[in-house]
Amino acid sequence: MRATLLNAPGDISVAEVDDPRIEALTDAVVRLSLSCVCGSDLHNYRGRRPFQAPQRIGHEYCGVVTEVGSAVGSVRPGDFVVGPFFSCDNTCANCRAGFQSACLNVAMYNGCQAELVRVPNADGTLVKLPEQPDAALLPSILACSDVLGTGWHAAKMAGVAPGQTVAVIGDGAVGLCGVLAAQQQGAERIIVSSRHEDRARLAREFGATEVLAERGEEFAAKVLELTDGIGADAVLECVGTEESFAQACASARPGSIVGYVGVPVGVKLDLAPFFRRNIGLRGGMAPVREYLDELVGLVLDGSIDPGKVFDLTLPLDDVAEAYRAMDERRAIKVALTLD
Amino acid sequence: MRATLLNAPGDISVAEVDDPRIEALTDAVVRLSLSCVCGSDLHNYRGRRPFQAPQRIGHEYCGVVTEVGSAVGSVRPGDFVVGPFFSCDNTCANCRAGFQSACLNVAMYNGCQAELVRVPNADGTLVKLPEQPDAALLPSILACSDVLGTGWHAAKMAGVAPGQTVAVIGDGAVGLCGVLAAQQQGAERIIVSSRHEDRARLAREFGATEVLAERGEEFAAKVLELTDGIGADAVLECVGTEESFAQACASARPGSIVGYVGVPVGVKLDLAPFFRRNIGLRGGMAPVREYLDELVGLVLDGSIDPGKVFDLTLPLDDVAEAYRAMDERRAIKVALTLD
Repeated sequence: MRATLLNAPGDISVAEVDDPRIEALTDAVVRLSLSCVCGSDLHNYRGRRPFQAPQRIGHEYCGVVTEVGSAVGSVRPGDFVVGPFFSCDNTCANCRAGFQSACLNVAMYNGCQAELVRVPNADGTLVKLPEQPDAALLPSILACSDVLGTGWHAAKMAGVAPGQTVAVIGDGAVGLCGVLAAQQQGAERIIVSSRHEDRARLAREFGATEVLAERGEEFAAKVLELTDGIGADAVLECVGTEESFAQACASARPGSIVGYVGVPVGVKLDLAPFFRRNIGLRGGMAPVREYLDELVGLVLDGSIDPGKVFDLTLPLDDVAEAYRAMDERRAIKVALTLD
Repeated sequence: MRATLLNAPGDISVAEVDDPRIEALTDAVVRLSLSCVCGSDLHNYRGRRPFQAPQRIGHEYCGVVTEVGSAVGSVRPGDFVVGPFFSCDNTCANCRAGFQSACLNVAMYNGCQAELVRVPNADGTLVKLPEQPDAALLPSILACSDVLGTGWHAAKMAGVAPGQTVAVIGDGAVGLCGVLAAQQQGAERIIVSSRHEDRARLAREFGATEVLAERGEEFAAKVLELTDGIGADAVLECVGTEESFAQACASARPGSIVGYVGVPVGVKLDLAPFFRRNIGLRGGMAPVREYLDELVGLVLDGSIDPGKVFDLTLPLDDVAEAYRAMDERRAIKVALTLD
């Protein structure tokens, strides 16, 4: 089959590799209907995270089961499925607590930018759709696999509740999904920072009530001005830099929580401003499996259309251009077709 | 009146100063029945936090109202009162949200190691006791002013709930009060680290079920061993160093929260391990006023005896020895009498 290989920082290509096969009785193999590039893939592409080249890459997928191990009971060949960006048993103590990304049997994918993927622990990992969805729905189904579930997690961790004012830091695909999540979870006002007209427009479509051009302390000052000097009831940090954490903290009301999902690569956090105003911090690798049934349901019933974060679609063979477009912020998020 | 003055790092003494007077219509003046030294006073004493010498110091108090401004309605001369370590209006948005330490009119005390203290916003700040308490209860009433309320806050922020396993990092007065708070808030198992026999004994009296000699990673490994490899349901971080935060994180179960109340002086936190396991962080300057009525009630009805953290009592005139004893960890916490 065809699969992407990251050969070196900045150098990615498609190569012919062996098809994945059932290795354990609990495995399934899925033929992808659509794949995509994640912001976190850029850490490796940019050489900010070490990796062993050539590296298979990609962790988001949805598609049709082609084969299952003999112990798999919940899906069978022909079923259309979507899974989170990791596999999990969904039965251990951490899964039962709703933190499947810390499953005692968690496994990370590396290689979903490809035609086929092997899914371990298929029964715990995969969500089966009632039928093959329309092609127009595929981007939104695929978004559930990571980017939407991650934005959703930021909002859950920040404790977003009906009627609240929520500030979202970051206008990338995760930040935009954070806006959508906050809106779905009942936020009344959603304040986001963006200077890109296309991202600002999508933020508004997803429920943002105020799009500010300000950044950093000026953004926080504006949030305070909009909230009678108190701050936002919940803040979603969807970037993952020291500056964005400082901005999130300064925008939050005393006692509130910053939900964060941007991988904090190399972040050394100054806790003092969080301490001074009792600002909490909750987040991490999103337990997407916990939210996946609900999110797929919202997509299928037409409540949400998170697939709009894909503003560029390219064939898998053009993966190099897909990474360049995201690296240069020319695209919010790129979908990869597999025909 | 007599009051302590921090003349330079390591140099503290008692001097004669002017009595405080009513300055605003909302002020009260309180004659202290008992005072004490706080672990956070040591930051200045040790020269770790800059201050302008000579500095008045101390922020915990309980005693008898001697005078009130004309706008004060809730207390009158002769009433026995206790207040949090800050004054607040208890009416602003932050107070109503339960974070009075972020009151829009908050004021910090500096000078409660003295015979008299002026309390701004007396109506919002002071809790009146039904009558003058027995002398034997004074240490426990005084403990409500800061150290107990701070341990209580750690447990509240960590989300301690009935039946949980709670790990407490720190065997200082705040850590010990954290044990007591966890026990009162329903924890079933309380694991604490201590190598001091007197502190370990008090921890057990306060509800600790396991006192470990291990520290750092070894403590965390032991907590995991005691919890089937999962980690504690809630962790109270009562030290405030990079090492103690790392220990707290490693002891916590995925998705749980580290409640922290140790002033994080100069802490630059590595967020990556928190992110990896979805460990939250909530805490800060304790909104003691929020808990004060409840805590005083628990003391008066004999449910708790937090005054046991005072293992040394000295007259105010011996304040220099009081600081030395705490600085050298010879005493857990020192009470200062004012006769």
